[in-house]
Amino acid sequence: MTNGAKALLRTLVDAGVTTCFTNPGTSEMHFVAALDTAPEMRAVLTLFEGVATGAADGYARMAGRPAATLLHLGGGLGNGLANLHNARKGKVPIVNIVGDHATHHVQYDTPLQSDIETVARNVSSWVRTSASTAELSRDAVDAIVAASGPPGQVATLILPADVSWGEGAKPAAPPVPATPPVASADLVDTVAKALRGGEPAALLLGGRALREDVLLAADRIAQATGAKLYAEVFPTRLERGAGLPVVERLAYLAEFASAQLAGLKHLVLVDANAPVSFFAYPGKESYLVPDGCQVHELAAPTDDALTSLDALVDVLDAADITPAVQQLSRPEPPSGELTADKVCQAIGALLPEGAIISDEAQTSGLTLPFHTAGAPRHDLLTLTGGAIGQGLPVAVGAAVACPGRPVFALQADGSAMYTIQSLWTMAREQLDVTVVLFNNRSYAILTMELQRVGAESVGPKAASQLDLTQPGLDFVQIGNGMGVPSVRVDDAEQLTAALERAVAESGPHLIEVVVPSIFAPQG
Amino acid sequence: MTNGAKALLRTLVDAGVTTCFTNPGTSEMHFVAALDTAPEMRAVLTLFEGVATGAADGYARMAGRPAATLLHLGGGLGNGLANLHNARKGKVPIVNIVGDHATHHVQYDTPLQSDIETVARNVSSWVRTSASTAELSRDAVDAIVAASGPPGQVATLILPADVSWGEGAKPAAPPVPATPPVASADLVDTVAKALRGGEPAALLLGGRALREDVLLAADRIAQATGAKLYAEVFPTRLERGAGLPVVERLAYLAEFASAQLAGLKHLVLVDANAPVSFFAYPGKESYLVPDGCQVHELAAPTDDALTSLDALVDVLDAADITPAVQQLSRPEPPSGELTADKVCQAIGALLPEGAIISDEAQTSGLTLPFHTAGAPRHDLLTLTGGAIGQGLPVAVGAAVACPGRPVFALQADGSAMYTIQSLWTMAREQLDVTVVLFNNRSYAILTMELQRVGAESVGPKAASQLDLTQPGLDFVQIGNGMGVPSVRVDDAEQLTAALERAVAESGPHLIEVVVPSIFAPQG
Repeated sequence: MTNGAKALLRTLVDAGVTTCFTNPGTSEMHFVAALDTAPEMRAVLTLFEGVATGAADGYARMAGRPAATLLHLGGGLGNGLANLHNARKGKVPIVNIVGDHATHHVQYDTPLQSDIETVARNVSSWVRTSASTAELSRDAVDAIVAASGPPGQVATLILPADVSWGEGAKPAAPPVPATPPVASADLVDTVAKALRGGEPAALLLGGRALREDVLLAADRIAQATGAKLYAEVFPTRLERGAGLPVVERLAYLAEFASAQLAGLKHLVLVDANAPVSFFAYPGKESYLVPDGCQVHELAAPTDDALTSLDALVDVLDAADITPAVQQLSRPEPPSGELTADKVCQAIGALLPEGAIISDEAQTSGLTLPFHTAGAPRHDLLTLTGGAIGQGLPVAVGAAVACPGRPVFALQADGSAMYTIQSLWTMAREQLDVTVVLFNNRSYAILTMELQRVGAESVGPKAASQLDLTQPGLDFVQIGNGMGVPSVRVDDAEQLTAALERAVAESGPHLIEVVVPSIFAPQG
Repeated sequence: MTNGAKALLRTLVDAGVTTCFTNPGTSEMHFVAALDTAPEMRAVLTLFEGVATGAADGYARMAGRPAATLLHLGGGLGNGLANLHNARKGKVPIVNIVGDHATHHVQYDTPLQSDIETVARNVSSWVRTSASTAELSRDAVDAIVAASGPPGQVATLILPADVSWGEGAKPAAPPVPATPPVASADLVDTVAKALRGGEPAALLLGGRALREDVLLAADRIAQATGAKLYAEVFPTRLERGAGLPVVERLAYLAEFASAQLAGLKHLVLVDANAPVSFFAYPGKESYLVPDGCQVHELAAPTDDALTSLDALVDVLDAADITPAVQQLSRPEPPSGELTADKVCQAIGALLPEGAIISDEAQTSGLTLPFHTAGAPRHDLLTLTGGAIGQGLPVAVGAAVACPGRPVFALQADGSAMYTIQSLWTMAREQLDVTVVLFNNRSYAILTMELQRVGAESVGPKAASQLDLTQPGLDFVQIGNGMGVPSVRVDDAEQLTAALERAVAESGPHLIEVVVPSIFAPQG
């Protein structure tokens, strides 16, 4: 028997939750005090909860198992909410531990008192306030089971301070891994018939279905049937580059996605939703599946996508097909004056084998998929839920999960500022992250969207809302101020040299590149 | 007739909501496009929603009327939640405008789709998703009424994109100001009798009851009856300094607050809650009213505190009493090596007439009330809800509300990092804010709390969670990187010179002071 906090930590590490991204307060002090009783638990301090939750997201995408977060009451959970939203949309497992006041203290409506569960429900498939020290370890196991899925989910365990400090707890045994369902033989036959019928067809892959094993199966199916392969717009984790099958991502802009999907008669969903427009626009369709196209859900997010696809491979007699894979093919390093496109080209030219890219370059990263298509094998992590401020924290988490692999955070300026505190954790943990900061000194994507939503005229006050020049942000000073060695590069040659140095040296680096926005402001 | 966004803006400005703190995304682009149709509306861009909501809080505390915020869906509201929590606890009016997807788009569960209302309820007394363009202006008026109170509240109006872009709207007329209830004659008589009875008694003033008019009435009552005057621990806005009555704040630490309250037989609440401990601790009481003390609520937060107190003054025949007010009395400027105490002393020595102090100095500000007690008249704004990261945004809002008054943001290092993006808005708007950054390179308050919660032993991993030295934050670089002229001072003489320069020059300044933590870490 021990106190709640110690039993909780033992339960977490025994179940494989061995990393915790933290931003604690007073109500979490027993959890903090107990950390030294669980040597297997790595506690990574962050200066802001959005860093903690985004890092937990990045960690789980790469580690394949959840990290915990440690957050302070409703305010702390609120600060972490945007990146929990992204994790939810990306089907990424996270176990939140949110401290709360002691149970007998709640009645007094003290300053930090709020209804934590209401906030948690926005992002969590599973929410529970632990009622007693004796039940805490079991609650933790239930949280881990809920989070692990499939699909991965956000589970939020609210931990009253007295449940944490109370005595009489014991750790709980780790959960048995789930055995997710697979597609029925009938469904596989139906899909096989649809794909063999000679009508235009495509597989849309998302979630867990963009890893090597599933991609290889999908490629065999594509070769056997002529079906196209598409990836969802914002993949949670896409394995790509030399030696891997090629899958085309659906475009962000609905007009382009519609062009990709035009004429399809069958769309087979594998851990993906039927395609829809990211935002709605006056007079434009939200649902992008063409009229007359039949949608087949071969594997729902709750299912085992790989086994389901393998069954389809068997029915199609495609198991012996040699997958068509991407050949190694890099662009030349760019030269001269820098543009966003040339920065992407430089990444393609220099990306090391086994790199992890966290892509929140927004409009500046438009040509990144093109320039890196033939780069050495790498993982691409994108902005799954659209709540910006995810790129830097995800890079933190990916680097913690994969200490041997170089991480590149391709980061837009506007988005960077939501969770800029990530830089400090990179420095503190000496993470091997190279931040490439595309500073176009505007909310460039909104310059485009302002036109697309049909706003007819843009006055000076409106234009000013998208402008980040007054003052311009100096990311070299900001980065150095948080302990990350930071430089600004003025041309492509300097960029190449800075990237090579960042790859060669351990620990984090920040490279600021001032680039023109790809969208000219209207103002 | 016009579109929803334009009618909404016209309705807001006609009702006196003439400032909007913004961080828009695509779903808010029609609101942004409409800004130029409402010249009375000042739109203040922030880089992070927690800055926008905290600024709206600071603005309303000083302006006495709500500002609006403009936030982007559930993620944006989440990012702003902690400071909305603080506003809620401080009874500060805020009108949130939270953009949402178009109503016909919600069904598709797109990446940014989430249940915004669940998040909003954590902080908002009033939540409504506007159902149609025709109803939008009326919804806005209802939001303003709900926010304005008393008490001031957070009202959240969720604005679907199509409601914003739809045609057929017209502005609504401004609401009629509310007439809040006053204490009944019976209640006033009961309280008068209690205060006259000769037993130890005190008035506890909070919320709106810490402004000059109410303080003068309270002081007369105190003089007439011998009752003590206490202010709540964390005042929303306390008018203090030379020429104003003196009111003693209840202590943050329950042990000290209990000592202040010991022996009381009557406690009269004026827009304040009965005192409770901020956090719960093992084996300690949460409720701090002594046994045998009768609590009288003379004015609830819904009531007119001033008129209620004036009625008590009349019954006590105290109207002619000359209030006892603080005399001007400043400390000498400090000299030599700097400590947190000396920084507070320097503030007391130099504070200009009419200054506004946003105090989030945490442990470093412990002696601030002492050193500034006899300073020229000023306003003190504190951390009402305990969710840190409020000080800098509140300073932004106060400076926007009071362009002629110098604002001092006394800011702890750990807390500063939650909403450090505030500095950029200070620079962009050239606000007259002097940030004094107490950098003790630790979460010092947690070093204390870790001991107070009874955590028996502190190992190296636990101690590391409270340590901000690896790496140390360089606020001079961070501040300069966001466009705020920033300096570090090494002794008291440099501090005095830097403060004098900051006061003399317009626009924002940051002064970093590296000070020892007042709590030695245990690690």
